[in-house]
Amino acid sequence: MTKELKELTSRETNYAQWYQDLVIKAGLAENSAVRGCMVIKPYGYAIWEKMQRKLDKMFKDTGHENAYFPLLIPKSFLSKEAQHVEGFAKECAVVTHYRLKNDPYGGGVVVDPEARLEEELIIRPTSETIIWNTYRDWIQSYRDLPVLVNQWANVMRWEMRTRLFLRTAEFLWQEGHTAHATCEEAQEEALKMQELYADFAQNFLCLPIIKGVKTESERFAGAVETYTIETMMQDGKALQAGTSHFLGQNFGKAFDVSFIDKNGNREYAWATSWGVSTRLIGALVMAHSDDNGLVLPPKLAPIQTVFIPIYKNNEELLAITQKLSPVFDRLRYLNISFKYDDSDNKKPGWKFSEYELKGIPLRVVVGPRDLENGTVEITRRDTLEKQVYPLAAVETRIRILFEEMQKNIYEKALARRNSRLTHVDSYEEFKKAIEEGFFVYAHWDGTRETEARIKAETKATIRCIPADSDRIPGKCVLTGDPSVCRVLFARSY
Amino acid sequence: MTKELKELTSRETNYAQWYQDLVIKAGLAENSAVRGCMVIKPYGYAIWEKMQRKLDKMFKDTGHENAYFPLLIPKSFLSKEAQHVEGFAKECAVVTHYRLKNDPYGGGVVVDPEARLEEELIIRPTSETIIWNTYRDWIQSYRDLPVLVNQWANVMRWEMRTRLFLRTAEFLWQEGHTAHATCEEAQEEALKMQELYADFAQNFLCLPIIKGVKTESERFAGAVETYTIETMMQDGKALQAGTSHFLGQNFGKAFDVSFIDKNGNREYAWATSWGVSTRLIGALVMAHSDDNGLVLPPKLAPIQTVFIPIYKNNEELLAITQKLSPVFDRLRYLNISFKYDDSDNKKPGWKFSEYELKGIPLRVVVGPRDLENGTVEITRRDTLEKQVYPLAAVETRIRILFEEMQKNIYEKALARRNSRLTHVDSYEEFKKAIEEGFFVYAHWDGTRETEARIKAETKATIRCIPADSDRIPGKCVLTGDPSVCRVLFARSY
Repeated sequence: MTKELKELTSRETNYAQWYQDLVIKAGLAENSAVRGCMVIKPYGYAIWEKMQRKLDKMFKDTGHENAYFPLLIPKSFLSKEAQHVEGFAKECAVVTHYRLKNDPYGGGVVVDPEARLEEELIIRPTSETIIWNTYRDWIQSYRDLPVLVNQWANVMRWEMRTRLFLRTAEFLWQEGHTAHATCEEAQEEALKMQELYADFAQNFLCLPIIKGVKTESERFAGAVETYTIETMMQDGKALQAGTSHFLGQNFGKAFDVSFIDKNGNREYAWATSWGVSTRLIGALVMAHSDDNGLVLPPKLAPIQTVFIPIYKNNEELLAITQKLSPVFDRLRYLNISFKYDDSDNKKPGWKFSEYELKGIPLRVVVGPRDLENGTVEITRRDTLEKQVYPLAAVETRIRILFEEMQKNIYEKALARRNSRLTHVDSYEEFKKAIEEGFFVYAHWDGTRETEARIKAETKATIRCIPADSDRIPGKCVLTGDPSVCRVLFARSY
Repeated sequence: MTKELKELTSRETNYAQWYQDLVIKAGLAENSAVRGCMVIKPYGYAIWEKMQRKLDKMFKDTGHENAYFPLLIPKSFLSKEAQHVEGFAKECAVVTHYRLKNDPYGGGVVVDPEARLEEELIIRPTSETIIWNTYRDWIQSYRDLPVLVNQWANVMRWEMRTRLFLRTAEFLWQEGHTAHATCEEAQEEALKMQELYADFAQNFLCLPIIKGVKTESERFAGAVETYTIETMMQDGKALQAGTSHFLGQNFGKAFDVSFIDKNGNREYAWATSWGVSTRLIGALVMAHSDDNGLVLPPKLAPIQTVFIPIYKNNEELLAITQKLSPVFDRLRYLNISFKYDDSDNKKPGWKFSEYELKGIPLRVVVGPRDLENGTVEITRRDTLEKQVYPLAAVETRIRILFEEMQKNIYEKALARRNSRLTHVDSYEEFKKAIEEGFFVYAHWDGTRETEARIKAETKATIRCIPADSDRIPGKCVLTGDPSVCRVLFARSY
């Protein structure tokens, strides 16, 4: 628990600092002694567990199974898919030795030069290569397909500039890897998982998203198409919240995974991969929280309600506790998580601030007058509105408030985002809108060169070619060359 | 799913080969392209998930929270606790570089020599060091204690001789790391977790266990005491199923984790750590399975019941399916997992063998005559006993059978173990009993030397000093020197 409730930096003063302060003060995570690696603290991890439980159920309900593949990948595997190695080689942690020994010159423990690996091993930055090398033995016939596997794992990408949750050298994620008999089926799977992520982000995390497909230069290394869900943070920057890749036969060919199809012909297997990570915790914090602390959607909050008794003496406390006891039983039965903070070494005001910082969705306060009147005072974290309700059936009120909050948090984020969406047709307008933190729909001539120049000049990238584009042609905002449709530009995390 | 149901090697022919065959044929795991690392396949992983869910709940019910600490540990951390580094340095995977590059001489992708780390990083073989380095900032006052944290993670120990689940370079586990204000409280925690593991092993995995404490030479590197639960495999060998360590102030001192106690004095924090791993899957397979395949306790089986319709035509299948449909609804409601295998490309006999191999606890067969009579035929996997029951309320019968099986599987293992427990008083008897695969209670003079000599001469180690020892003194089976009580010797995995 946070020991000192020093003021958070306000969002307006310094948004990046506010985020960093909040993650640390709310006890979600902290930097570790290992450069770029974070410690996910119990409260942050509890949020991750909530995400995992829900996603895992969604994956299983759509026919996927979990498995586990090795952490280490032989260096040669990485090289088998040309674009894949190009994308990941520059940020790999490399294992070269398998033993330490005592320094014969008294320098403590040193790497034993005799324990050098014949082939270096890479800590997985993603697992396509080791998994497709395994699939070669699993897949012989169309009857072995589809293979619908997911893995919950840690991965490592040696990032030079890191930020808690959003960009760290090691992070936790899930990675789905599926194999299919036909191109159409694999494409369908990739789109289905994009849809699943969109559903999860919107209905569980309250994140409004824009679905679309990445341009060639923003694609996953080794993918034919990368489908993305993009969401807006409070500073107007985009955050890629999840991606699903149609990998074609690239990995099937690179790892010689082929099968006999229904007509007796040998075909390479078709692939998808898809993932979301602990980055989503960063997205959640950045999207909804305020200058008082975290704002967590009720469906995701590890502690959904806190009860705080106001009392002058033990007798009053006892009376309040007795009155609340049947309420607690009903909450347990309804699977609503709660905390009863009757500690006497903190003042109620301190508790109020603490639980606001932690983003507990509802605060229920019961004092001697409530006891007389048979009431409670409930404060919503999202609006900070207080209201008095009858104690009887308070659990029903809690559930109604949860639903309202889940909806309100989403709609607030949606309204904020919609107020920062714009369509522009000139490069001057474009630069201004990007500078002001807008999501900008603009025409683009479809070339890598234009995309790169715009990025160099404005730091904006094409977040996606939106799935719901009206496909009305126009002229590129930079070059004036023909464009088939508007694409979404923004600065991003 | 297994494609060919070739015969398993029988246990009598070659127990080790039987185990290896079974793990692979039942689709639990396989070796990977990375030396010593396994792929945990979906069916094996589903068993691990069942273990995780149960243990995680048990940990949380006893006040523990989950968190996540970095995979990589600076080499210097490992050296801070003298015995700890001694125990782990010889089997560490070492990260020395953080980047690959294209070989300027055309040799593909090579390690970039310019991307050498200043200090090498070790892939965690266990996390005491990185965690206690973190606790230094978490713990300032007795009010910050206890810290009761658990981590679910992968770890790596570079084993030279590996065996699926039982000994692999990478494995999955949980590691609890707690900090306490007093010696007594830490000792109590270590014993409480040993008790929790014993409860889990006996009531969930059906493994009879012997609780005890390790001798100095078998202790965890850095522990003051190591508490263990030891279980017997069908060949009479012991398997250490879980350990809980009282670490004293060793890590508190090594990482300078101190706090101000209630009296205003500065004290080092007291520690415990405890863990179980995917090794338990190996224990489960080895303890209960038979020459037909896996035998899984119902509480642990990913699929608890399989329904197989026997039919000659579609009409019959339809009638059976209609009849079973309300049963399936009731099973779903009762949270009993099942599979309905109405596939027509496999014969019933093939299905019977397949599900026996996979250890599905109950097989429910419904044919046309059952339809007429309103019956089903249920076969228990543990005894292979068949019996006909009324279809009405079959779900109640299933639950009763599950309870009987859970009990029977445990009692079978217990009877087998008890028949291989012996007390000996001469070294000749000792050697004979060890050779025949017994757990041997014998007197030991308490010296490292005697323990080492017995191990060298018989391959038997002291599994533990049993917790329920009668503490009757005697004479060492090897040296004849005085002994305070009998200890448990066995060969082990």
